[in-house]
Amino acid sequence: MDGGMTKVTSSDVAKRAGVSQSAVSRVFSGASASKATQDKVRAAAAELGYRPNVLARSLITGRSRISGLVVAYLENPFYPDALERMSKALQARGYHTLIFMASWTSDVDRVLEELLDYQVDGIIAASVALSDGLMDRCRAAEIPIVLFNRGQEEGGLTQVTCANHAAGVGGADHLAAGGHRRFGHIAGWDGSMTGRDRAAGFAEGRARHGQSAVTRPGDYDREKAASAALTLVDEHGVDALFVGNDHMAFSVIDVLRHQRGMALGRDVSVVGFDDVPMAAWPSYDLTTWRQPSGQMVAAAVERMMALIDGEASPQRVEIEGRLIQRGSSR
Amino acid sequence: MDGGMTKVTSSDVAKRAGVSQSAVSRVFSGASASKATQDKVRAAAAELGYRPNVLARSLITGRSRISGLVVAYLENPFYPDALERMSKALQARGYHTLIFMASWTSDVDRVLEELLDYQVDGIIAASVALSDGLMDRCRAAEIPIVLFNRGQEEGGLTQVTCANHAAGVGGADHLAAGGHRRFGHIAGWDGSMTGRDRAAGFAEGRARHGQSAVTRPGDYDREKAASAALTLVDEHGVDALFVGNDHMAFSVIDVLRHQRGMALGRDVSVVGFDDVPMAAWPSYDLTTWRQPSGQMVAAAVERMMALIDGEASPQRVEIEGRLIQRGSSR
Repeated sequence: MDGGMTKVTSSDVAKRAGVSQSAVSRVFSGASASKATQDKVRAAAAELGYRPNVLARSLITGRSRISGLVVAYLENPFYPDALERMSKALQARGYHTLIFMASWTSDVDRVLEELLDYQVDGIIAASVALSDGLMDRCRAAEIPIVLFNRGQEEGGLTQVTCANHAAGVGGADHLAAGGHRRFGHIAGWDGSMTGRDRAAGFAEGRARHGQSAVTRPGDYDREKAASAALTLVDEHGVDALFVGNDHMAFSVIDVLRHQRGMALGRDVSVVGFDDVPMAAWPSYDLTTWRQPSGQMVAAAVERMMALIDGEASPQRVEIEGRLIQRGSSR
Repeated sequence: MDGGMTKVTSSDVAKRAGVSQSAVSRVFSGASASKATQDKVRAAAAELGYRPNVLARSLITGRSRISGLVVAYLENPFYPDALERMSKALQARGYHTLIFMASWTSDVDRVLEELLDYQVDGIIAASVALSDGLMDRCRAAEIPIVLFNRGQEEGGLTQVTCANHAAGVGGADHLAAGGHRRFGHIAGWDGSMTGRDRAAGFAEGRARHGQSAVTRPGDYDREKAASAALTLVDEHGVDALFVGNDHMAFSVIDVLRHQRGMALGRDVSVVGFDDVPMAAWPSYDLTTWRQPSGQMVAAAVERMMALIDGEASPQRVEIEGRLIQRGSSR
């Protein structure tokens, strides 16, 4: 793992980039450097597989014992909870966690690029997708990455998710058992495999029960989900809603109850996804598909450690969830 | 700032502790070492003001450009939100954030002890209190600390809070204006100055209005707050509740509405503290004292930077909040 790093020096990068060695230092120390210089230096470093020695390696183990954790979408309480579990699980293994925040639709590449400068031993990326270029960069640097609660078809990355397709089927089964006439789905973000799998599972499930369904995008956003719910109820007569996550489902319940005067579990059934703590609070009392967050975190940490130790090849881990029935559905 | 570090070496620590130099390395690299060895080495290191060079300093600036952020109590949505803002504000200044999770009533010292090994340039501690011993340790290591949303009488630390006493007065003024007969307060954690200031302000405010009040501890915990609310309503006839934070107030609303059938804003008024996003959701519609989270984060980051630059002495920053009236109070 150290091969590339001990051979390639900042002086090699400077020569390749056609800049001074101090310019290379400036770029990687975060000091001021022109955009053009930064681009040249980063391109040369990437070509040569160079990572700056910002962190001294641990004296005995030869590792930084720091893991990078990229998170986004903290307004969904699923993630603060997972973050806390992950940080504790890593602490228990003697690892510290350098946490980087990214907006979940943008700037992930820039954030991860910076993480590479810190010589983390591994990265867990929660709720964000990685570009092909960036995956290549991490592979060249031999830094293992584990995707958490996010899948990606390309790149052969290790990923840990809930069994999302089965969950979609289970949601449809539950709504069918409630005797509903018209199904609707408020989908997660179309760019996420997680969201697509849940939607595909739900479609398969409701088809098995001979039901049609109308789908509207929610994009994991409260406002979009509320507006989708009104459209589905008002224009399509939907009385059974499967919502891509709890965070959207709370917004759906609020708008149906307070703007349409509907009684949850009677006039309309709403099923969420995640089982965040708030789902059990009496004001929402949300039927939802529980993601086994503790098991998913344990698997992600365990996979990352195995990859760091060179004992594993990339794999996809799917963990079964289960329906938690509460008052928002009949 | 480098004086102590360049002079004291791991060999000095080994001599003082009466152990081998490799034992010192093992302790600070997180490799296995007996409890006795760890204690001896850490004690010797503390006496000598030694910090291991786990992170190489940035080549040009002479700084690690890493700030430590200690957080606890992430189940209160005030903190994930503040964490995200803080991380972005620090990123914007070229800093990365090594985030450590601590349980807010324990293990803070241990966590901060580890942080010191990482040679962070500064520390922001949100929602946690520091022991005297640890404050001395940080002072010896010349690592500035800023307390966020938490005050501490001792230690002369820089701290950034909302104007909590004035907020308590404001809460009492609002409930008095609603014509309530009997006031109650569900207090935060008694060990926090933040909680004590809110309670003292509320006591002063209700006394001004010639009101008595009953106070019960909530300890920032949902279960305790719910049980306190039932006691206050059932046994003390309270019809106006000032609750130490929103996270507890949601639980209070749930229990009064669903277990006592009370109508919020009519049978009983509830006022929270923080104005987390959920307070505006129709199912809670919580009147609350808004903490200016964005301004508090900006002040904490700005103060830490000034301390790192050696341009400031410790100070207490209090930022005014304001009442946001919604449907949970009349």
